[in-house]
Amino acid sequence: MIKVGIIGSTGYAGGELVRILTGHKEAEIVWYGSRSYVDKRYAEVYQNMFQVVDAVCMDDNMEELARKADVIFTATPQGLCASLVNEDILSKTKIIDLSADFRIKDVSVYEKWYGIEHKSPQYIKEAVYGLCEINREDVRRARLVANPGCYTTCSILTAYPLAREGMIDMSTLIVDAKSGTSGAGRGAKLPNLFCEVNENMKAYGVASHRHTPEIEEQLGYASGEKVVINFTPHLVPMNRGILATEYASLKKEVSYADVKAIYDKYYQDEKFIRVLDKDVLPETKWVEGSNYVDINFKIDTRTNRIIMMGAIDNLVKGAAGQAVQNMNLMFGLDESEGLNLVPLFP
Amino acid sequence: MIKVGIIGSTGYAGGELVRILTGHKEAEIVWYGSRSYVDKRYAEVYQNMFQVVDAVCMDDNMEELARKADVIFTATPQGLCASLVNEDILSKTKIIDLSADFRIKDVSVYEKWYGIEHKSPQYIKEAVYGLCEINREDVRRARLVANPGCYTTCSILTAYPLAREGMIDMSTLIVDAKSGTSGAGRGAKLPNLFCEVNENMKAYGVASHRHTPEIEEQLGYASGEKVVINFTPHLVPMNRGILATEYASLKKEVSYADVKAIYDKYYQDEKFIRVLDKDVLPETKWVEGSNYVDINFKIDTRTNRIIMMGAIDNLVKGAAGQAVQNMNLMFGLDESEGLNLVPLFP
Amino acid sequence: MIKVGIIGSTGYAGGELVRILTGHKEAEIVWYGSRSYVDKRYAEVYQNMFQVVDAVCMDDNMEELARKADVIFTATPQGLCASLVNEDILSKTKIIDLSADFRIKDVSVYEKWYGIEHKSPQYIKEAVYGLCEINREDVRRARLVANPGCYTTCSILTAYPLAREGMIDMSTLIVDAKSGTSGAGRGAKLPNLFCEVNENMKAYGVASHRHTPEIEEQLGYASGEKVVINFTPHLVPMNRGILATEYASLKKEVSYADVKAIYDKYYQDEKFIRVLDKDVLPETKWVEGSNYVDINFKIDTRTNRIIMMGAIDNLVKGAAGQAVQNMNLMFGLDESEGLNLVPLFP
Amino acid sequence: MIKVGIIGSTGYAGGELVRILTGHKEAEIVWYGSRSYVDKRYAEVYQNMFQVVDAVCMDDNMEELARKADVIFTATPQGLCASLVNEDILSKTKIIDLSADFRIKDVSVYEKWYGIEHKSPQYIKEAVYGLCEINREDVRRARLVANPGCYTTCSILTAYPLAREGMIDMSTLIVDAKSGTSGAGRGAKLPNLFCEVNENMKAYGVASHRHTPEIEEQLGYASGEKVVINFTPHLVPMNRGILATEYASLKKEVSYADVKAIYDKYYQDEKFIRVLDKDVLPETKWVEGSNYVDINFKIDTRTNRIIMMGAIDNLVKGAAGQAVQNMNLMFGLDESEGLNLVPLFP
Repeated sequence: MIKVGIIGSTGYAGGELVRILTGHKEAEIVWYGSRSYVDKRYAEVYQNMFQVVDAVCMDDNMEELARKADVIFTATPQGLCASLVNEDILSKTKIIDLSADFRIKDVSVYEKWYGIEHKSPQYIKEAVYGLCEINREDVRRARLVANPGCYTTCSILTAYPLAREGMIDMSTLIVDAKSGTSGAGRGAKLPNLFCEVNENMKAYGVASHRHTPEIEEQLGYASGEKVVINFTPHLVPMNRGILATEYASLKKEVSYADVKAIYDKYYQDEKFIRVLDKDVLPETKWVEGSNYVDINFKIDTRTNRIIMMGAIDNLVKGAAGQAVQNMNLMFGLDESEGLNLVPLFP
Repeated sequence: MIKVGIIGSTGYAGGELVRILTGHKEAEIVWYGSRSYVDKRYAEVYQNMFQVVDAVCMDDNMEELARKADVIFTATPQGLCASLVNEDILSKTKIIDLSADFRIKDVSVYEKWYGIEHKSPQYIKEAVYGLCEINREDVRRARLVANPGCYTTCSILTAYPLAREGMIDMSTLIVDAKSGTSGAGRGAKLPNLFCEVNENMKAYGVASHRHTPEIEEQLGYASGEKVVINFTPHLVPMNRGILATEYASLKKEVSYADVKAIYDKYYQDEKFIRVLDKDVLPETKWVEGSNYVDINFKIDTRTNRIIMMGAIDNLVKGAAGQAVQNMNLMFGLDESEGLNLVPLFP
Repeated sequence: MIKVGIIGSTGYAGGELVRILTGHKEAEIVWYGSRSYVDKRYAEVYQNMFQVVDAVCMDDNMEELARKADVIFTATPQGLCASLVNEDILSKTKIIDLSADFRIKDVSVYEKWYGIEHKSPQYIKEAVYGLCEINREDVRRARLVANPGCYTTCSILTAYPLAREGMIDMSTLIVDAKSGTSGAGRGAKLPNLFCEVNENMKAYGVASHRHTPEIEEQLGYASGEKVVINFTPHLVPMNRGILATEYASLKKEVSYADVKAIYDKYYQDEKFIRVLDKDVLPETKWVEGSNYVDINFKIDTRTNRIIMMGAIDNLVKGAAGQAVQNMNLMFGLDESEGLNLVPLFP
Repeated sequence: MIKVGIIGSTGYAGGELVRILTGHKEAEIVWYGSRSYVDKRYAEVYQNMFQVVDAVCMDDNMEELARKADVIFTATPQGLCASLVNEDILSKTKIIDLSADFRIKDVSVYEKWYGIEHKSPQYIKEAVYGLCEINREDVRRARLVANPGCYTTCSILTAYPLAREGMIDMSTLIVDAKSGTSGAGRGAKLPNLFCEVNENMKAYGVASHRHTPEIEEQLGYASGEKVVINFTPHLVPMNRGILATEYASLKKEVSYADVKAIYDKYYQDEKFIRVLDKDVLPETKWVEGSNYVDINFKIDTRTNRIIMMGAIDNLVKGAAGQAVQNMNLMFGLDESEGLNLVPLFP
């Protein structure tokens, strides 16, 4: 039985980790960390867990946690994980960091986009970017995994095969993404009030959202060239779900079958990536509560562009589900253990 | 492996049966019945099931189904199950009927409230009302189970212990219930359009809703007296969830502890009924996607009334989940097999 | 031109006052009070007002306000208006208080339910309870109006004619009310976050909500007896709208026509109260954005109860609209000036 | 008093025409056409109009209508207006067609994208494309106005100044648009059911939506070149609102002030177009219920692209509001008569 510690277990991503791990046969949570709710019963913070989880929230104590846990998930604001990690910790336990601290290899890029000093840049190189379908083998051997962002997971996986195979002109790539509101976290902020979000839609972080360099870096590795994109996130009045609509110019004339074959080459054996049938477009509801990424595309011969679409549940494949998928890889378990979650509809 | 046939597998309750049975270790679906989608792949009707369910929708053929299936779920409009059942069928298979056909013991009451002639009244007596927590032993021995309605499951369980113990004046019982829109089914009707339901709330079926006599009959058994109530359903702009707020005069002065003790007497060993802690009121989101019933109450000494509240997911405990719970009982399985569903939040 | 000052202009009720007064031909706002946003342009707080309102938010200064304004609306938390009002102020200006400070005649009842000391009980007697349809003549002569609460407006008007005419047994009255989330205000609180409210429903303040004594007092005047009721508010995932479902035993056998005649007696000349046609039940969407109260009822001969239903927009007839209606009465204007708001659908 | 006839008055756009015209001082509706609800009281179809509109729905009778009405709004499916219009009709009355029949000048483009034969192509040339801010003078003189589509109104106005001034490379223009569900109309179709739309988001009509050629034609006139774009509509779980996010490469290096000056050049005197302050991004809620278009932009120096954003209420500026604005122009009235609608928030 893998002993799991969670720092930040009372945020939405933390709550989803708890939900998923509750159904995991090889793992048990031994530490429900939550600086805001120390000594409070976890089920009082999330009443859905009443009679399911009996534990009490604990303060952050990395040393003790490292002794008690085989793996630590940090579902915390940027900067915290980097400030806590050290050789002693990493010698005792594995870390899956759901924040951005170890996602970007160039520390100056991280510091510029996030506006904070990185406290342990020495581990950036070692950290494995935990996009399981792409870095599976590296994840297996990692002791520190940088779990990808929600927008980035969806944006990268949707374009990856075409970037990798050189089908699209990377300089034309535009990602227009739409997210449910749980992505904004559980902080009590006016813009996230029901009456402000409901019956409303807006773009935000235009040309400045922090997931931009993460997408650029990974698609840069895939395409073998420097990638600079437009990424525009939007807030949608729904709890869960990200839909990415991506546009790029095709480098040469291709048919539906050509492109489908490329997607299949990379994804047909991937349990969690579903390339939909022709003309069936992804909808966020079809993946809700599950670890699936639904993908499809449309070629527009009038403009010579391809429109790629991807949908995920931001809290599952975009956060907690992928983190558990990484854990499974790191511990040599069946990659889908605990993740056989059938999407909830309606 | 129990072989399961579903008639009406493409309605919302049918879809939920498929979702739940997909995770059931002792059952497999051998017949996805859907008169509307014959020969269509099931996953084309519910794309969330893409790469999960590979089957094709079948027409209704009760004879063939009875040969192939150990149990048949009928998630169909009123009247259909009653028109299909006969001794030959019941000798070969078990039936769990999600419609109202066999819920009401007095056929004249059924025919009056539903406005249709009952086609097989000879089986009404035999049929067991499948409210597991109350009729568990009878369900175990049944070959025909009448799966309770969504409103009724919530309404009955919320008041049952107090009715049973004679704590409340049954003539004063009022049930004000609120339901998500999935309860209205998947039919393409104008009043169920997004723009008609969203940002809106209304009562409907006031003093005439068909679940009324079902609640009255069951609470009549519990209290040992004839029960006539007001039941008012309301439509709420959310997909899932029923909240029942129930009012009744107390027969004598009681304390919180007195009433809590009664609820505990009936429910503390019930896995799927959670009597919440003092002052924690049920919310539908806390049971979403799960088979739980969350219950609590408040005594108002000013009016000498008790206000009881219960919340369920109408598609799970109010339909498919309870149906599977009944199946588990009928086949001697662990009652919670396939139903260890942790509520999804947010 | 009536000069209007608003204290608390940046809450949801304050914002609605601004929206309505913007279309009022005889009034102009001269003071946009908002302690939280002093010196900020009003249109930066509510961008819907961009290029509509050019003013800047002001601090609270009751003396200056009293000099500048013919009428002051206080859309503020309980206690503030009572702490500011005095003879000097009232000699210079009129006050319409949207808080509860002057709604309840018995100061001890106020202090018990609200848990605060009343700072100017000497004005409680003078203050007129501004339910226009009931206290129209008194409002005309008032210098201090207590604008009714949102739940109370809906609850009282729905039952008033039957209470007044002695048709119902007041000791059996139960009000089960459902409200959109704007009723909770614009404060940044966790329970009001989109993800906590959306796809969720709950009761709150059961047997303890502060609008209870206000309903009891007014229906007590109507019926001529002491009234004690159960009032249960619920939170619904929509922005606007209150639906009250009310239950009471009928004192004698009555027909639909009898009851309809009573409602018509009180309401048929009331512009803002629409008693709907037989069997058409109120829906909150049909009054959204307007000052209407939609009412209807159903007699249940089985239980000898009547079920009364009423719907309002909580921010209009439940707050700002009624406040403007009161202002119109106080200044001798057409009662509906500025309030010819057609409900928005969908 | 202008006498107005509406064909298709019971669709959502028709209902919005009724709402707006109810508050119009110079117009009165003399014909509520609705083939589906002939002889039914209008207020029974839209209960929000109870006691506001007393009329009964009429069948379509173009000849009689032309005699009785000074202007006819056709809020009907494509093809109907083209099949009814003729010289006799146009000699007696003016027509504002809310369908696409007369929007596209090249009849072959219309027939290709809409898949129907055009029944009166002889009037296409005469018809004026009723985007008031751009074709104001032509509209004034028109007897047949083609009222623009909802997506197109938003998409065109958002990019128009930059297209007109040659600031952007038109071959790079991509429009990613998001719409509330009222745009799908009031037809009882499964995909528009509450449970299918709520908590869901999807693209549709990718590379094939019928508003594409309309946008291309108008932006072609603006830029003086043939324009071919990608236009991707998305369905959002809200009733009203369209948000268009548009991407294009800048032809040369420009500053915020440069671009702002161009927007101001075209829009600063336009009452219904609000170019927001720097860094304030459009949100659909801020224009809800009003005729406003809120626009802003962001320059991304990293990619040399500009991201333009526009928001409208699809039923107002995207349909009925703009139609009334056109009517005002055609009859020489104040352009904003009946359209002084303050956005509803929240």
